[in-house]
Amino acid sequence: MDDIITLAYGSGGKKTAELIGELLLPAFGNDILGELGDGAILPAEAGERLVMSTDSFVVTPYFFPGGDIGKLSVCGTVNDIAVSGGEPKYLSLAVILEEGIPTEDVRRIVRSIADTAKRARVRIVTGDTKVVEHGKADGIFINTTGIGVLRHPGLSPKAIREGDVVLVSGTVGDHGTCVMLARNENLLRSGIASDCAPLFELTKTLRPLGTDLRVMRDPTRGGVATTLNEFTEGTGLTIELDETAIPVKKEVRSASDILGLDPLYSANEGKILAVVAPERADEALRLLRTVPEGKDAAAIGRVTSSHPGKVVVRTPYGGSRIVIKLAGAQLPRIC
Amino acid sequence: MDDIITLAYGSGGKKTAELIGELLLPAFGNDILGELGDGAILPAEAGERLVMSTDSFVVTPYFFPGGDIGKLSVCGTVNDIAVSGGEPKYLSLAVILEEGIPTEDVRRIVRSIADTAKRARVRIVTGDTKVVEHGKADGIFINTTGIGVLRHPGLSPKAIREGDVVLVSGTVGDHGTCVMLARNENLLRSGIASDCAPLFELTKTLRPLGTDLRVMRDPTRGGVATTLNEFTEGTGLTIELDETAIPVKKEVRSASDILGLDPLYSANEGKILAVVAPERADEALRLLRTVPEGKDAAAIGRVTSSHPGKVVVRTPYGGSRIVIKLAGAQLPRIC
Repeated sequence: MDDIITLAYGSGGKKTAELIGELLLPAFGNDILGELGDGAILPAEAGERLVMSTDSFVVTPYFFPGGDIGKLSVCGTVNDIAVSGGEPKYLSLAVILEEGIPTEDVRRIVRSIADTAKRARVRIVTGDTKVVEHGKADGIFINTTGIGVLRHPGLSPKAIREGDVVLVSGTVGDHGTCVMLARNENLLRSGIASDCAPLFELTKTLRPLGTDLRVMRDPTRGGVATTLNEFTEGTGLTIELDETAIPVKKEVRSASDILGLDPLYSANEGKILAVVAPERADEALRLLRTVPEGKDAAAIGRVTSSHPGKVVVRTPYGGSRIVIKLAGAQLPRIC
Repeated sequence: MDDIITLAYGSGGKKTAELIGELLLPAFGNDILGELGDGAILPAEAGERLVMSTDSFVVTPYFFPGGDIGKLSVCGTVNDIAVSGGEPKYLSLAVILEEGIPTEDVRRIVRSIADTAKRARVRIVTGDTKVVEHGKADGIFINTTGIGVLRHPGLSPKAIREGDVVLVSGTVGDHGTCVMLARNENLLRSGIASDCAPLFELTKTLRPLGTDLRVMRDPTRGGVATTLNEFTEGTGLTIELDETAIPVKKEVRSASDILGLDPLYSANEGKILAVVAPERADEALRLLRTVPEGKDAAAIGRVTSSHPGKVVVRTPYGGSRIVIKLAGAQLPRIC
C-alpha cells in the first residue's frame, strides 16, 4: 500500500480491494467477514430479542492518552448495547478516510479496533470504506453499529421510582478532560487518560437485580448531568445528587478548573450510571466492585420529588443548585 | 431550530435534543425509535438467520436528479441486504453534519430518508447525530446499517458454474453518470436521473429459482465491470459479456462519451446483477420483468472458462477485450 491514503482507495476497485485485503481483513479476519458479501449472514440466535445501536465517531485528535478513535468506536457501541441490557455480539464497521491520512495511522487505528473487539468479545462482520478529498473530512470518521442479544429486559427510565438510588461505576469526567487536554500539547503531561473501556462485563454484574435495576446508561457526550436529566425530564421525579459523593480524580478536577470545564458535563467512555431500588443499592455496589471497571463505584444520589423533572446537586455547605442539560457545545468532537 | 446547523447541535445536550425532537423523530417516529434508549430493542424474529450490512454515504452533490443522499442511504443498505437474500427490516441512521449546513437541506434529506424507508418497508430504529466544524466534512455524511431476515439462503459467487447466465435488471450507468453531470451546472439539463431505488421487491421475484439463482449483487461503486470481476477473480471461470446485449440508455452513453466515462464502470443504485442456471434464465428474466424495477432486464453474458478469473466483453465486430476491475478513482464520491 502507499504511505498515504489517496482518493483511489475509495474507488470501489483495485485499490479499495487492496485497502480491505491488506489492512482490514487481516486485522478482523473471521469466517463471516471473510465472505465479503454485500451483507453478513449471522448465525441464528434462536428466538432471542435483539438490541441494535449505532454511533459515529469524529473525535479530535484521533489519538489521545488511553485510547484512540478506533478503541472508542468499539467501546461506544458495545457499551450502548450493554447498558440497554444486551450482550454485544456483532459489529459493522464503516470508515470515512480523508485523502492524505497516513496509512500507518489507519493501520494503528485498525489494530486498536481489532484489539478492543477481541477484548469486548464482538465480531466485526461487515464493513465499508469511503475516501473523501483532503479538506472534506478530518483524518478519519468511524461508524460502528452493533447487534446484541437482550439479556436483561425491562430496563427503562420509566421504571424509576421515588426512593431509588443513583449509582456511578467510577470517577467521572476522565475521557472528556483527557481529550480536551490532548488538544493542547503543553498540557499533555497531565497523566489523565481516557477511561474508554468495553463495559459488558460490568453491566453483567447487575443481572441478579432483575427489575430492581431500573435503568443503566453510559454518560458519554453531555456527561453525567445530561444523562440524568434525560431520566427525569417530563416526569414528576427529581434526582438529588450529593456533590461530595461524586468520584472525580484530583487531576481531572484540577484540569477542569484550568480549562473551565465541569466534570459533571464531561464525557465518560468507561462508566455507567445505574438507578436501583433502595434495598438493593448496597448489593449493587458490591457487585459492580467485583470487576476492575467498577472498583470505584459509588452511590451519588437519590430519586425524590422535590423539584419535579429536575436534577439538583446538594453542595457540602448545605446549599443546592439545579443542574440543567448541556446547552451549548462545551466539548465539541469528544467522541 | 436555527436556520443553519451550528456546533451546539452536536453537543449531546439541549440543542441535540432539539435536532432529534423537532427534525428527526417526527420524520421517523415509531415505537422502537421513540424509546430513545442507547440501543433499540427489536422484536424477536423467531430463530431466523439475520443479514447485516453497513454503508456510509458521502456523495457530492447531496441533491441530484432522481434522488439525494438520504434516498441513497436507505436504498444502498436495503439493497445490499436484498441481494444477500435478506428481507430488510430495520435500519440504524447516523448522520455527521458540517457546521453551517442549512437546516432546510437537512430537513429535506430527512424527509427523503423517511419516504424511502416507508417505500422499502424498513423501520429506522436507532440513530446518532454528530456535528463537526465547518471545513471538516462536506455538508452531510450518512451511515445506515441494516438488519434483515434471511429468505434466500445459499447465494454466493462460489455457487457459480460454467454455463450459467448473467442477467442485469435494467440499464447500466445511470446513477454514476447522473451524479457526474450534477457536478457541472451546464450539463444539468441532460434528463439523466439516478436509478436509485429500493430493490427488495425485485430480488424477491427470483425466490422461486432456489439454488438455481447462484448469486445477486447490486453493482454500485465500480459498476458492473468491478462487480463481475469480484465474481470471477481467484476462480477458473470467465464471464463473457455480449456488448450489444448490455442495456445502456442513449443519453447515458452520449454523456459518458463526453465525460470520458465507461458505463460499465459507472455506479448503479437501482440495478442488480444475477447469475442463474442456464435452464432457468428465461424464467428469471420473466420474473424480473414482473416488477417496474426489472422491466428492462436482459441476459448480458455467460459463464465460460476461456480466460480463467477474467471478465471479457465480446464486441459486435467479433473482437473481445478483457474488462479489469476499476483501478483508480474514475468516480470519487458517487455514493
